Amino acid sequence: MSKTILALLTALLLTTSTAVLAASADERAQTAAETRQGLLKVVARYFGPIFLMAREQIPYDGDVVKANAEKIAVLLPMIPDLFAADTSAFDLETEALNNIWEDLDDFNAKAQTSAEKASALAAAAANGQGAAMQAFGELGGACKACHDNYRQQN
Amino acid sequence: MSKTILALLTALLLTTSTAVLAASADERAQTAAETRQGLLKVVARYFGPIFLMAREQIPYDGDVVKANAEKIAVLLPMIPDLFAADTSAFDLETEALNNIWEDLDDFNAKAQTSAEKASALAAAAANGQGAAMQAFGELGGACKACHDNYRQQN
Repeated sequence: MSKTILALLTALLLTTSTAVLAASADERAQTAAETRQGLLKVVARYFGPIFLMAREQIPYDGDVVKANAEKIAVLLPMIPDLFAADTSAFDLETEALNNIWEDLDDFNAKAQTSAEKASALAAAAANGQGAAMQAFGELGGACKACHDNYRQQN
Repeated sequence: MSKTILALLTALLLTTSTAVLAASADERAQTAAETRQGLLKVVARYFGPIFLMAREQIPYDGDVVKANAEKIAVLLPMIPDLFAADTSAFDLETEALNNIWEDLDDFNAKAQTSAEKASALAAAAANGQGAAMQAFGELGGACKACHDNYRQQN
């Protein structure tokens, strides 16, 4: 690879994230926490409109349910990648409980179940509001199962 | 939908994100900014290892290139969704330039081009290191084209 392209890529990453080029373990842990929080903010972004439909605050729209559930279904399988780094030894602003890394297989399995429920919701969107909302409830339950075990309770 | 499930979903969103239930426009804008920043942190997470291969700091691994490029290729098409909310009127900690919302079609087209370059990288990973690194350079160039126009220069 040419030095010009490498310089371009270096500049790109330095302005996007210090994670890759981070000098210290503390910086890497901080970036890991921000990255996984970032992922879940994006999940919430797509979850939100379906939730407002469930609360009947906005009209039901099967196309939006399908599109958003498909996004959630590709985001949730990234959870194992983004939680692979065990940050339990670091002093971070995080609601992630340290037992994630004690029970990582179970944590990852719960993330996988959630992803499957999101795919099921995307499929159910074609079957009308009743089917979609039932599938949405199951997705919410799968999210909650993971939060109850691995996220600080507020 | 039962009240129990609705209560569950409400609790879930309240602990995940204030975005959906946010009372004020300021809060919604803040969440929008954090959410789009979160997306790009996840992109950087998958970009990083390929970058380290390009710098020859870690050994080339075509499987990782393919897997990570596939993740990037599904993340980048979320950019238009996450930047749809025009936050230029708000006082936010952001490097997003206000001309994003003046030239939104061009901004979205550049995001789309980047996504296509990520898909091309995933495909090129099967063709060996040389082809992959060339495709990676093109992805980096597509990222830069958007940053140069729409992101504050540091």
